[in-house]
Amino acid sequence: MFKVTFQRYLTMIEQFLAQLSWDKDILNQSMHYSLIGGGKRIRPVLALASAESVGGDPETILPVAISLELIHTYSLIHDDLPAMDNDDYRRGRLSNHKVFGEANAILAGDALLTYAFELLADPGVGQPERQLRIIREVAVAVGKDGMVGGQVADVAGEGQMLTLGEIEKIHKGKTGALLTASARLGGILAGGTEQQVRALTDYAQALGLAFQIKDDILDVVGNSEILGKPAGSDFRQGKSTYVSLLGLEGAEYQLHAQIQKAQAALKPLDEGAIFLSELAYYIEQRQH
Amino acid sequence: MFKVTFQRYLTMIEQFLAQLSWDKDILNQSMHYSLIGGGKRIRPVLALASAESVGGDPETILPVAISLELIHTYSLIHDDLPAMDNDDYRRGRLSNHKVFGEANAILAGDALLTYAFELLADPGVGQPERQLRIIREVAVAVGKDGMVGGQVADVAGEGQMLTLGEIEKIHKGKTGALLTASARLGGILAGGTEQQVRALTDYAQALGLAFQIKDDILDVVGNSEILGKPAGSDFRQGKSTYVSLLGLEGAEYQLHAQIQKAQAALKPLDEGAIFLSELAYYIEQRQH
Repeated sequence: MFKVTFQRYLTMIEQFLAQLSWDKDILNQSMHYSLIGGGKRIRPVLALASAESVGGDPETILPVAISLELIHTYSLIHDDLPAMDNDDYRRGRLSNHKVFGEANAILAGDALLTYAFELLADPGVGQPERQLRIIREVAVAVGKDGMVGGQVADVAGEGQMLTLGEIEKIHKGKTGALLTASARLGGILAGGTEQQVRALTDYAQALGLAFQIKDDILDVVGNSEILGKPAGSDFRQGKSTYVSLLGLEGAEYQLHAQIQKAQAALKPLDEGAIFLSELAYYIEQRQH
Repeated sequence: MFKVTFQRYLTMIEQFLAQLSWDKDILNQSMHYSLIGGGKRIRPVLALASAESVGGDPETILPVAISLELIHTYSLIHDDLPAMDNDDYRRGRLSNHKVFGEANAILAGDALLTYAFELLADPGVGQPERQLRIIREVAVAVGKDGMVGGQVADVAGEGQMLTLGEIEKIHKGKTGALLTASARLGGILAGGTEQQVRALTDYAQALGLAFQIKDDILDVVGNSEILGKPAGSDFRQGKSTYVSLLGLEGAEYQLHAQIQKAQAALKPLDEGAIFLSELAYYIEQRQH
């Protein structure tokens, strides 16, 4: 069932992405290149599943869910830039700026972020007040006190020995905030109760941390071919990670603890949460 | 009267900007540095004045009007980057990346753009449907088919001989789209009629073109001290401008023609448009 449901969400997402129209110019090509780069689509999947977990129709919120993938893609393009992580590869392909040049990569990121807010304000998604609230929440999650703030702290921390608390703060910003917003967005737009939205929030916060710990583990034990990027790049860049601080076993333990926490948070959602529960195991076991 | 009203708008804008809270970290400092860099605040002024021209209360739409200045500031920070125009100075001070470094400049721009959408979705601005429409309009105006698209075309056109049509297209994207959105935003949020919003649109489109022609003229005849950036930088960068294509006299003629067009467009607004009319003359005569 998990795979069938996951595939149903992915099909909705890929079909929506495929029907967006792109001009032939270099900006559109550059945006499209990174957006159709084989991402895992975890954020829109999480939003659609969260909507369904509280009894909503995922189709209704699709444009808003897609916006999360656009935001994620913009953040990857900017993170890879020479001035930031200077990564030449992403998902097994050349990073955006290696193909389209630095100026176009910056601008493609800018345009994807902007396009995301156009989709967030899509008409016909539901109650306009709720939608405005979601726009504010997403903006806060990916702005200076969220994702961008996390990236600034990450760049500043390179080559430094960070504490576990500092690493956690960086990741809460870099990955956690948008994942949490994704789950909340689905729950809120689908009219979930306060208790349900709270459950989704707690779930997604633990999931976000688990996601990052798994990333750090894969950087050490992962296969470069499957990862689509060179394994060990955190180490070479002198980044503090969960593995460098806790050791591999300690990181695995923490990963599992967060997955348990995510599972426990789902209780109030009863059967509505079956997919989300399996999604957490999927993230614990992913190989890329 | 014009100066008094202008000052009233500016006071509202500066007070709102001053009460935004900024943390002490480098990202917040970097955002704040460029935002409080002595801009002319034309876009929020245009929005507030447009709201008032159709009988609305400018105070109500203030957060939304401020978002326009954040978007404008983000675009300047990214335009100045080494990968783009590589400008060391802006408004008489070092450009953002010269002070905070390239990574922080990119991220400050990203965070300002994101913050802008948070303000655009501010609660209590008015009818949520209207506000969602405005968010879509602003996103389109500053996205791939608007401001970002214009910047891509501008970067691509450097060192090439462009036609007048090509220059006009670049500027419609780079400056025109956001100025037009600013006027429409004020008119729409304040509940202007379709005819009034149409008038504001036509006015702002002509004003936007005039604004750019004036910029090109100032780059040739302007005083570097007053401009806050070296005069003649378009010429040195091999940019095609209205002046390089039409000559100084031809550009002055075009400027005046656009100002006349802007004035004519204001007819349906009657006395409501007195300030906007004088704003057009102000833009024609500005020295920086």
